[in-house]
Amino acid sequence: MNIKAILGLSSVILIAIFSLVMLSGSSLGLAVDFVTPEGSVEWEIHMFVKNIMIWFMLMLVAFLMIFIKKYEWGVLLAVLLSAAGSFVVFLAIQQFVFGEPWNQELMLMGVICAITIVIAIGCFLGSLKMWQYLLVGILFAPVFSFLVWFMGDGISGLMFGLEAADPGGSILVHMGAAYFGLGVAFALRERRAFKEPMFTTTHSVSFVWLAAMLLWVLWPAFVTALLPMDQVFLGMMVCYMGGVGSIISAWLVCTLIQKKVNPLIYTYAMLAGPVAIGAPLILIGPWAALTVGLIAGAAAALSFIYLHPWLCKKLGALDVMGVHNLHGVAGWVGAFASITILAIVYSDMDAALTNLVAAVAVFALALVLGALVGIILKLTRGKYPDEDMFSDDADFIKSEAPQQ
Amino acid sequence: MNIKAILGLSSVILIAIFSLVMLSGSSLGLAVDFVTPEGSVEWEIHMFVKNIMIWFMLMLVAFLMIFIKKYEWGVLLAVLLSAAGSFVVFLAIQQFVFGEPWNQELMLMGVICAITIVIAIGCFLGSLKMWQYLLVGILFAPVFSFLVWFMGDGISGLMFGLEAADPGGSILVHMGAAYFGLGVAFALRERRAFKEPMFTTTHSVSFVWLAAMLLWVLWPAFVTALLPMDQVFLGMMVCYMGGVGSIISAWLVCTLIQKKVNPLIYTYAMLAGPVAIGAPLILIGPWAALTVGLIAGAAAALSFIYLHPWLCKKLGALDVMGVHNLHGVAGWVGAFASITILAIVYSDMDAALTNLVAAVAVFALALVLGALVGIILKLTRGKYPDEDMFSDDADFIKSEAPQQ
Amino acid sequence: MNIKAILGLSSVILIAIFSLVMLSGSSLGLAVDFVTPEGSVEWEIHMFVKNIMIWFMLMLVAFLMIFIKKYEWGVLLAVLLSAAGSFVVFLAIQQFVFGEPWNQELMLMGVICAITIVIAIGCFLGSLKMWQYLLVGILFAPVFSFLVWFMGDGISGLMFGLEAADPGGSILVHMGAAYFGLGVAFALRERRAFKEPMFTTTHSVSFVWLAAMLLWVLWPAFVTALLPMDQVFLGMMVCYMGGVGSIISAWLVCTLIQKKVNPLIYTYAMLAGPVAIGAPLILIGPWAALTVGLIAGAAAALSFIYLHPWLCKKLGALDVMGVHNLHGVAGWVGAFASITILAIVYSDMDAALTNLVAAVAVFALALVLGALVGIILKLTRGKYPDEDMFSDDADFIKSEAPQQ
Repeated sequence: MNIKAILGLSSVILIAIFSLVMLSGSSLGLAVDFVTPEGSVEWEIHMFVKNIMIWFMLMLVAFLMIFIKKYEWGVLLAVLLSAAGSFVVFLAIQQFVFGEPWNQELMLMGVICAITIVIAIGCFLGSLKMWQYLLVGILFAPVFSFLVWFMGDGISGLMFGLEAADPGGSILVHMGAAYFGLGVAFALRERRAFKEPMFTTTHSVSFVWLAAMLLWVLWPAFVTALLPMDQVFLGMMVCYMGGVGSIISAWLVCTLIQKKVNPLIYTYAMLAGPVAIGAPLILIGPWAALTVGLIAGAAAALSFIYLHPWLCKKLGALDVMGVHNLHGVAGWVGAFASITILAIVYSDMDAALTNLVAAVAVFALALVLGALVGIILKLTRGKYPDEDMFSDDADFIKSEAPQQ
Repeated sequence: MNIKAILGLSSVILIAIFSLVMLSGSSLGLAVDFVTPEGSVEWEIHMFVKNIMIWFMLMLVAFLMIFIKKYEWGVLLAVLLSAAGSFVVFLAIQQFVFGEPWNQELMLMGVICAITIVIAIGCFLGSLKMWQYLLVGILFAPVFSFLVWFMGDGISGLMFGLEAADPGGSILVHMGAAYFGLGVAFALRERRAFKEPMFTTTHSVSFVWLAAMLLWVLWPAFVTALLPMDQVFLGMMVCYMGGVGSIISAWLVCTLIQKKVNPLIYTYAMLAGPVAIGAPLILIGPWAALTVGLIAGAAAALSFIYLHPWLCKKLGALDVMGVHNLHGVAGWVGAFASITILAIVYSDMDAALTNLVAAVAVFALALVLGALVGIILKLTRGKYPDEDMFSDDADFIKSEAPQQ
Repeated sequence: MNIKAILGLSSVILIAIFSLVMLSGSSLGLAVDFVTPEGSVEWEIHMFVKNIMIWFMLMLVAFLMIFIKKYEWGVLLAVLLSAAGSFVVFLAIQQFVFGEPWNQELMLMGVICAITIVIAIGCFLGSLKMWQYLLVGILFAPVFSFLVWFMGDGISGLMFGLEAADPGGSILVHMGAAYFGLGVAFALRERRAFKEPMFTTTHSVSFVWLAAMLLWVLWPAFVTALLPMDQVFLGMMVCYMGGVGSIISAWLVCTLIQKKVNPLIYTYAMLAGPVAIGAPLILIGPWAALTVGLIAGAAAALSFIYLHPWLCKKLGALDVMGVHNLHGVAGWVGAFASITILAIVYSDMDAALTNLVAAVAVFALALVLGALVGIILKLTRGKYPDEDMFSDDADFIKSEAPQQ
């Protein structure tokens, strides 16, 4: 143990103790007192910005996944096609099956559906034909519509069912994405993926840093997407405090365990705080949020280092982008944080149980539905030559200098 | 025809039929019912965000054009100088000639003027001296002031004349930019541009992807720039649906015709939906918008593949960045979509005729004024050595490693 | 003198004369007439966007500093850790020492604190151990709290003391950052930094262009951060006009003096207008702002070319990223502009004197406190091998192709 480690760990412990004291957060003067109904001009102005910000995040998720030098543009095109397919079909389902009116909340649910499948394809990128990413987007739309209908967090008229406390989507979006993706990967069981050396370059990874850092910044728009206006600003504070937590703890874990930081672990694990904060979002104050972030960042980094190799081996399928380590593990941290806080701080056993059921159900449903979709993808893929795996050459015309 | 092609084409046809049914969109519950006058605090808050978003788009247009490995920074500096020159002179003209007061709407017109010239220089980038990009910006400001005065779409007090239906700028901005740029290129007739091999690198093109994907995201701010508040949110829905259309159809056309995707066609053609949607913006519902986007994306990709080589040869000038394929062709798609819809759905022949006149007039005026400006540029350029063409070395000090 | 130089200089002179005429700006119809108290829904919606935009800028500052090819990711991680440390500790100080309630204004002061230290570390990046960037963030929080308390610009309840006119932070943020950073660098006196050749690549510099161009765009959010709503929109106009000024004058100075443009001077100096506009922000109209921007851009570029080598030699320490040339010099331009305008145009000698005192005091306090923090950093750094200087290899695991 050197000075760095002692300093780091003692800070974490101090902050953790401190945070528990601050847990209830009731004395922080956080209350904002106004009612702003959906459809008012203030609401619409705010939703306009959020729609754009969440689409912005969707595009950044693409850049989070372009670190493999020889497979960058393919990732970007796959993201665009899967997003386009899921967005359009989700909106069609909502209009024609559920009779939802077109408005900015519906648009927001549409892009949240799209970002969920974009996260999920990270589990199996590089082993499908390009047109299949459009297909997987189209097939995901009914899956997400079903999960939304099932979860029902009581925020939008869209939702029925459980009324779980998950305003920021730790369970619905992140766990849903991770386990749907793992389900697909399990069905595809593409063993050749394990052999990919995944060589990077300085700048292929710099794009990942750019994406991670800007995703972190925009995250408050995501977790507060459908909150009533008077809770939005609390949501922002809590989100940034959670994010600061994972920036620090992900670095501590990486550097203490592996001596040096693996940028492809850090850039993902630094986002674990915002992922985990989604479920307990409006239940806690900022210092408790910092603690949740510290735990989530550490958990995600540890998952990359220890759980990932074991799980992929067991599964017989490579989680290509390590989606499960960020969205799966930090999603669970968020779910358990919300369950614990509901049970202990709020003494609301019913709500705690609801969130437990929600987490387990989303885990199981997403996994099974993912596997079903995976089977369809496997059947429609046809022959898939080795040289097309993780390769832009399979899909793109290049115009590089002949000898550079 | 393989499975991919059948799947793709049948989807397009299904969606197209579907969209025609949905064309009027009157039953979608899209109406928002509030009046928010200019100068109210809600209006100002909203305009603040839009001003920033459209400047953001302007900078992204620069990154859309840095794919030539040896000519990246020069593009960026040229964009900054032409934007700065046109912005300042446009504002001076509005204040001192038209007596317009300074406010956020004026600022917005200023940045729209700047983004128009930034698009236009894509036609002739790489064959001017750096100070001439400042000059072309300055010269474009009165041209744009004249076009705005002529077009007059009835939205702002700035505008007189035609009152064409073009809230999102398909005609004024995109056709204006494309034909002004072609006019300049025609006058310059720089035949050496045809010889440029335009070698790229993976990351010079990745920057283009980044720019295209984020431009797509921010586009609703552009098309709704000067709309009254109660139409803004409809504008966003329509814009994103159009954008989804061109994401899909541009890919389909690229992959069906050329087997593999040329990223420098796709990243541009995927934006054709938002370009084309500008004119029919508030006339249609989301499913009709999807159709417009599908058509525009296909048209832009086809234009890159078939029209571009023919047109440049006829013109005797290379449209360097293919500006005409995106902004010209998709601008025409938008113009004709608005004319058709006004004539058939709304049975308003006067309005349809006005838009036809507007499109033809902007086409002709921009071309002629561009050619005039091009003559000035040709006369003031002086000697322009071969090695300065498309080269950062002409303008920048470099500090790369001696042997890398 | 060639045609370019004559054209450029005569434009500058014309615009300057013009601007002085327009200085008072009283006839521009800039007044907006509404009161929007803190805590109203409009205020909160606006602050939500600004919080996100300023965090966005903070991340962009990181990308402004990644031009050294072999030291990119280290800069990014250092930015994240110093931002995280300062943000959390600043908020803790405000809550527990000053009893401030948690709200969006407090969050905004937190990220402004964080962005200030992120600017400051540019003076000494590359010569600390990674954990020390977290430490310097933590140590900066009380320094910034003290400066805020001292400055007191009368905008927020947070501030006491001088009530200087510095809404956009020319003095507090930019001069504070520059002189705190120089103070640290002076105490570290790391002479090995002078030997770093700082080799770049095309794309390491393209990321810098991206950061500079987007920072320029987002700057109105920064300078208007804590302004009352009715001054925000004037602040935006003035900020963009100042920014246009430095885009033009920085290019003119670079190209006239050095024949070719050094992109690492230009991308920084083009931001000098927005830096300098912070102090005189609400005192001037747009044409005067253009003049301030023209002067600031020229001053920053001249500082890079002439002052920087001399100052660093005198100081015995390299200002690695040239922070002083942008934030220090343009900060002084802003301070003197505000002093001159208050004294001459507003005939308010008290206010002018207050701003003079503020600038001198922030200069001296930041320098001394920076030197103190620098001594702590030097003492805790331990042995620091040559090969760790400016090197990602010291902190990161790489996975590049063995032979690429």
